[in-house]
Amino acid sequence: MVYGEEIAQYTPEVENVVVTSITKTENPNYVFITMDTKGLDPGIYNIDFKKGKRTVFSRAYELKKRAPNSKLRKGFDASDVIYLLMPDRFANGNPNNDSHSELTEKVNRDFEGGRHGGDIQGIIDHLDYVEALGATTIWSTPLCEDNDNQYSYHTYAQSDVYRIDPRYGTNEEYQMLSKELHKRNMKLIMDYVTNHWGLEHWMIKDLPTYDWIHQFPGYAQTNYRMTTQMDPNASQRDYKYCMDGWFVKTMPDLNQQNPLVLKYLIQNAIWWIEFANLDGFRVDTYSYNDKDAIALWTKAIMDEYPNFNIVGEVWMHDQAQMAYWQKDSKIGAIQNYNSYLPSVMDFTLHDAIGQVFKEENPSWNKGMIQVYENYVNDFLYPEVNNLLIFAENHDTERINHIYPNIEDYKLIMSLIATSRGIPQIYYGSEIGMQGDKGKGDGDIRRDFPGGWPSDQNNAFKAMERTDKQNAYFDFTAKLLNWRKKAKVIHSGKTTQYLPDDEVYVYFRHNDQASVMVVINNNQSDKVLQLDRFKENLYHFSKGMEVMTEMEIDLSTNLKMPAKTSYIIELKK
Amino acid sequence: MVYGEEIAQYTPEVENVVVTSITKTENPNYVFITMDTKGLDPGIYNIDFKKGKRTVFSRAYELKKRAPNSKLRKGFDASDVIYLLMPDRFANGNPNNDSHSELTEKVNRDFEGGRHGGDIQGIIDHLDYVEALGATTIWSTPLCEDNDNQYSYHTYAQSDVYRIDPRYGTNEEYQMLSKELHKRNMKLIMDYVTNHWGLEHWMIKDLPTYDWIHQFPGYAQTNYRMTTQMDPNASQRDYKYCMDGWFVKTMPDLNQQNPLVLKYLIQNAIWWIEFANLDGFRVDTYSYNDKDAIALWTKAIMDEYPNFNIVGEVWMHDQAQMAYWQKDSKIGAIQNYNSYLPSVMDFTLHDAIGQVFKEENPSWNKGMIQVYENYVNDFLYPEVNNLLIFAENHDTERINHIYPNIEDYKLIMSLIATSRGIPQIYYGSEIGMQGDKGKGDGDIRRDFPGGWPSDQNNAFKAMERTDKQNAYFDFTAKLLNWRKKAKVIHSGKTTQYLPDDEVYVYFRHNDQASVMVVINNNQSDKVLQLDRFKENLYHFSKGMEVMTEMEIDLSTNLKMPAKTSYIIELKK
Repeated sequence: MVYGEEIAQYTPEVENVVVTSITKTENPNYVFITMDTKGLDPGIYNIDFKKGKRTVFSRAYELKKRAPNSKLRKGFDASDVIYLLMPDRFANGNPNNDSHSELTEKVNRDFEGGRHGGDIQGIIDHLDYVEALGATTIWSTPLCEDNDNQYSYHTYAQSDVYRIDPRYGTNEEYQMLSKELHKRNMKLIMDYVTNHWGLEHWMIKDLPTYDWIHQFPGYAQTNYRMTTQMDPNASQRDYKYCMDGWFVKTMPDLNQQNPLVLKYLIQNAIWWIEFANLDGFRVDTYSYNDKDAIALWTKAIMDEYPNFNIVGEVWMHDQAQMAYWQKDSKIGAIQNYNSYLPSVMDFTLHDAIGQVFKEENPSWNKGMIQVYENYVNDFLYPEVNNLLIFAENHDTERINHIYPNIEDYKLIMSLIATSRGIPQIYYGSEIGMQGDKGKGDGDIRRDFPGGWPSDQNNAFKAMERTDKQNAYFDFTAKLLNWRKKAKVIHSGKTTQYLPDDEVYVYFRHNDQASVMVVINNNQSDKVLQLDRFKENLYHFSKGMEVMTEMEIDLSTNLKMPAKTSYIIELKK
Repeated sequence: MVYGEEIAQYTPEVENVVVTSITKTENPNYVFITMDTKGLDPGIYNIDFKKGKRTVFSRAYELKKRAPNSKLRKGFDASDVIYLLMPDRFANGNPNNDSHSELTEKVNRDFEGGRHGGDIQGIIDHLDYVEALGATTIWSTPLCEDNDNQYSYHTYAQSDVYRIDPRYGTNEEYQMLSKELHKRNMKLIMDYVTNHWGLEHWMIKDLPTYDWIHQFPGYAQTNYRMTTQMDPNASQRDYKYCMDGWFVKTMPDLNQQNPLVLKYLIQNAIWWIEFANLDGFRVDTYSYNDKDAIALWTKAIMDEYPNFNIVGEVWMHDQAQMAYWQKDSKIGAIQNYNSYLPSVMDFTLHDAIGQVFKEENPSWNKGMIQVYENYVNDFLYPEVNNLLIFAENHDTERINHIYPNIEDYKLIMSLIATSRGIPQIYYGSEIGMQGDKGKGDGDIRRDFPGGWPSDQNNAFKAMERTDKQNAYFDFTAKLLNWRKKAKVIHSGKTTQYLPDDEVYVYFRHNDQASVMVVINNNQSDKVLQLDRFKENLYHFSKGMEVMTEMEIDLSTNLKMPAKTSYIIELKK
């Protein structure tokens, strides 16, 4: 795509390159040129814009060289733990870029919904911290330019998808973040938005075609009912409004049915993978996209990088409906649908976690049974080890708000760290950070203490953390660093037992190792008769509890302290 | 199977019949004989029991003639409405059989959990009533002999599966019930129990084999967690206890993995279909049976009668899990499972109905949206028109207890009568009968007023019904009698619209007809803008509301009174 005032009046030619098609639209400021790049050497190619035989002007187009073995890059997987952070709220590494002359919204740390100055340099500065915590992968919420005049810090309303927002840094700094991560054997996931751009995007302000975005005409809000995408009884109207309606007024909904839009999004995604040497995408509002087009987008990227990973935000509350969206889903196949999306988020596990540890009246269907029942439907997913598992994210309630006690935090982390799938944790909770979504999104996205030079408490450093912060951090770090090497957790089979009296027991096991997880969700000690578990305990008579390093006798019964979990490596 | 003291010491022979196998077990009182009946004429065949060449005694075995076209009998379907009744509580047509010398529990109408004396003659006597109501099919809870010493009235702990309990009548009276129904173009569903017999069953008291029932040894209770049957992570222990554990202590769990047990249950079922000319089975506790064996049982019957219908009680709360059990399920196929069961019960619709009409704070996921969302997952079911749909049954809370107002009853009945699937109603609710499950099962199984000669109020007769009873009855009868002829409801497509402000709208339509259903679940009137529905209204500008027979103008908007539903036949 080449943009220029009245550029469509010229005929583009490229020396020594076959131009297979030239597409012009109703907007004369755009030309879309398809070149046959097969066999071309990397380098600069000039596109000459001609009037008759005269070249009026030229544009340089760079064909970049791909990194060696780029195609075979391996994405994040269940051996990883993802650390989700919001860059504006994590650490301000470069106070000189907090505001930028070209961009409307200036820094204002006093406003919860304003820009606080966090940036890429801040992330780079604290990679040692993240590594020490035992996380292996960073998912930062989006970093591309968002020139909205307010709330731009969330950066989901982008105004230029080829440019890192200068208030976060430069494209080169983003490359540097990737390099620094890979140096540590860590990975980088980019938060990609296919569904919409911001109203301030320069192409939205000068639309290439009327149908570049969905117009009703202009704005109409989505009904947010993603079930319409699979409901055989849904009215066409509801189906269309879900998919084509705008997420919010400042985010025009992209029409990926337009092949030019789709191609733009595919090329941009591939460009970022190469440019920043990415290990994965997290795709925002995945199931709000045009259903067929997002499958084409996803397939195009996965065809290019077969071992890459992409996790889509499919925020639904029914496992069949979530499984529908995972690659090669048997549920999707009922409607001949295949998204090609390798990974979806286990939102029903999230839902259960938000309730069960505060359940005061456990019953037939309340309490630990809710966690147990989440795994019952594992058979609906084509690839259960590629589910993102999490207790919270930047859009949900903070777990330390729901559960202010560290005991509950520990139960949750033990569960997340030992379940099948890819754990994702959320910045700050590992030092006990609070936040109340009831007070607005800003409150669940507080600044990480120590990320700003003026911060009195620097929780990045053990010596400066409070005792409480250290208690949270030390538990988390020990657990995640253990998980790093525990292959049986990454790929082992799960066997679970019906919770009995709010004590939930499951095993992760393969031919080499077995781990027994016991979660006592009671306010009182419980004694567990172990003969119930003999099909998993068989020749194991003792074990080592990972967190306490206690030796555990498994020959008779097991005393479980109140509100405690044991992660026991079984030994013969 | 032939039973007799020490009968296994003899060699059975049948004149002119090829005996293909003789099976003896560890109990010498049983012999299982397989005869090749192909080409045999109906009639009596003598089985001679021999010692050497000497016939010590003979038993007569009758090979009965099948009814003409028996194989092609058509089962109940979505053109039907099922009237579920409990025979002990419906009507006492023959006060002489209330107790019986051979059977332990005697009549005691004063005890809620006792036998009240209702019987088959009582059902026959009131078929005109059921027909006038507009129901087309009767499902009576079980009628075979149950000789438990208490609570035998529910009759799920049977002591002889070839014999109607004499307190209900004779086998011939059951035949008569079937004949009387068929005379009226009505149908009969037998409630069949494959999972267990009663402790008092004569074969349980003298087990043919130790493994005729599941023994641990002796009794162990099921964990009732049917999810273990599909959970890929379930422990073998939990899986086994669900399937093989006993439902209650008085109901030994049959081991259908034993081919002799399975054959006995198949032959008994076929025998009843022929003997009583049945139109369907309702199978109790379907998903507690041995999973593979119940599929064999179901397939054997459906192979014998390909157009028959069987509905299984799969009391689960997740649609993927329920859809798993329906014939040719794509969900079951994930685990290579096919139950061959044509019909399952839509328990999630039941769950939603029990909540939404009393919802005081409708929200994103509470209120009419719960009913809407039930239909979203219709694509998971292989045959949605073969779902049993119901608001209540003999094991659940009574709807008139949850919703004491007739307005809510009308909303529920309108929904049940116009949704896809086979409506099932529960005796007594059609005259406003109450009952509180919190007070025990007896209270939701009260005697139908007028079923006993001494009853002061006879609700079977319009003249003797109270005004309130007539209001319930007249609404129900008008609705169901309309449904009888409304083919578009039996097999039409559904198009539903997102509920807006607690008004839920859907259409049932085919090439011949369209019906618009509007349910206003508010305590206040609402005005509905109709342009939202234009894809279904297109050339229709008016309609006739079925219950009020009002002509409805559909050219602008529609005023909906509070807590009211309209069922509108659309007209050009």
